[in-house]
Amino acid sequence: MSEWFVEEDNKEIRFSCKIDETLFEGKSDYQDVKVVNTLAYGKMLILDGCVMLTETDEFVYHELISHVPLCYHKNPKNVLVIGGGDGGTVREVLKHKEVEKVILCEIDKMVVDVSKKFFPEVAGELDNKRAEVFIGDGIDYIAKHENAFDIILVDSTDPVGPGEGLFTKDFYKSVSRALKPGGIVALQSESPWFKKAFLERIQNNVGGAFQHKKAYIGPVTSYPRGLWSWTMASHDATLFDAPNLQRFRAVSKGLKYLTEGMLTTVFDIPPFFKEKIKS
Amino acid sequence: MSEWFVEEDNKEIRFSCKIDETLFEGKSDYQDVKVVNTLAYGKMLILDGCVMLTETDEFVYHELISHVPLCYHKNPKNVLVIGGGDGGTVREVLKHKEVEKVILCEIDKMVVDVSKKFFPEVAGELDNKRAEVFIGDGIDYIAKHENAFDIILVDSTDPVGPGEGLFTKDFYKSVSRALKPGGIVALQSESPWFKKAFLERIQNNVGGAFQHKKAYIGPVTSYPRGLWSWTMASHDATLFDAPNLQRFRAVSKGLKYLTEGMLTTVFDIPPFFKEKIKS
Repeated sequence: MSEWFVEEDNKEIRFSCKIDETLFEGKSDYQDVKVVNTLAYGKMLILDGCVMLTETDEFVYHELISHVPLCYHKNPKNVLVIGGGDGGTVREVLKHKEVEKVILCEIDKMVVDVSKKFFPEVAGELDNKRAEVFIGDGIDYIAKHENAFDIILVDSTDPVGPGEGLFTKDFYKSVSRALKPGGIVALQSESPWFKKAFLERIQNNVGGAFQHKKAYIGPVTSYPRGLWSWTMASHDATLFDAPNLQRFRAVSKGLKYLTEGMLTTVFDIPPFFKEKIKS
Repeated sequence: MSEWFVEEDNKEIRFSCKIDETLFEGKSDYQDVKVVNTLAYGKMLILDGCVMLTETDEFVYHELISHVPLCYHKNPKNVLVIGGGDGGTVREVLKHKEVEKVILCEIDKMVVDVSKKFFPEVAGELDNKRAEVFIGDGIDYIAKHENAFDIILVDSTDPVGPGEGLFTKDFYKSVSRALKPGGIVALQSESPWFKKAFLERIQNNVGGAFQHKKAYIGPVTSYPRGLWSWTMASHDATLFDAPNLQRFRAVSKGLKYLTEGMLTTVFDIPPFFKEKIKS
């Protein structure tokens, strides 16, 4: 008998994948954690019934959330990743030799453990000497740090459940304080196809804490509605002018999605999305 | 009782949309034709069980298949669209004032009729003075024309059923003969996430008839695997160098997806896709 994983979005659409094998099912203090092997996407990490990553397309999300801010920053040395317990974002950050240290602050230890066991290609760099894993609440962690990071990447789940607090204006203000001068925050900011009010709220909250912000997009076809967005924010407008291509070229050989052309024009987003978020 | 439209791809994944109302169901000489209203995507045209377009996101596909070749061509005056009976591609082509005539050659009259009735925003320009609709087989039509078009757009269904013949090397050779010197063909070339052998075959067939070709991508999230590709081919390598930005700016005000940045870097495709199609 065949089993299907089904993710339903807003009672309107369903994304279903045929499951070859269920590899792990657990319940952490925060969420249901599941790993399945699917015919279409290979291994898949599922949190509270939502796809977090698949081994075949995870590179799109992870390259976009990390290399865009890393290449637009002037001199990124200290990076903090909030969420992202699968380690994919940390793996991409560490491709930049200038980065001296990357700290991962993940609330759910089970996500880290399961990722290390079932997704070694994704989580493998969590054991890198330049990486440090801190299990704890991202909001508390950020509140305790001031002027500490060049880049903060908010690699969160959706603004429901454990990820909810990572989308508030207060949180972004806290992020702003935790950044050094010239610092950049980048966050996943949901699908451009989602409802205007929902997307606008995220953008308004970021805009309430940072003087400048720009969204960008990329295809994450295992997520609801297939197209995804990230938002980069800073107090320094000049950071958005142009990426450091020398820095990009130093890491580009190992990339599977992001190209120099895309990076250079990354903030030139589709008018339909621009209009929705008024940016 | 709620009804869902379900499209299954390769027995591996399913894309399902909740149907609000079924507006049309018919059987033409070539295929099953269906129009439903969905909660997530609005009205949707379905041919042989596959989504052809939805009213909320059709602009992505139609802008990409048309404006890329139109802006990279030196002087596009005569355009032929094969397939595309919904009229969306013709609508985009006609935004270019330089285009003197666009002919649509669609095999299935029912697709044109249904589109005019249920998708007036998409099909409305089929009645434009500069447009001509020819109901007939694209392969025969092309074979009867030589040195006749500046641009040919192959806006076909998948390479199964009525669309099959539009993916062969013989067809592309026929397309090559139907083009004027400096002519360009652009075709939908399936999802970059599909299997390598399938994608390579399409590229090899195009490459067997044209000296130069480049693929490009865009998100069509109502299609299987969400990310889509098109391929532009020509005998003139210089056409791929840079788009005519003046021409793009003349039409860009009305566009919802394509931006100048995207157009300029459109052939800089993700390494994972480049590797798959060896181009």
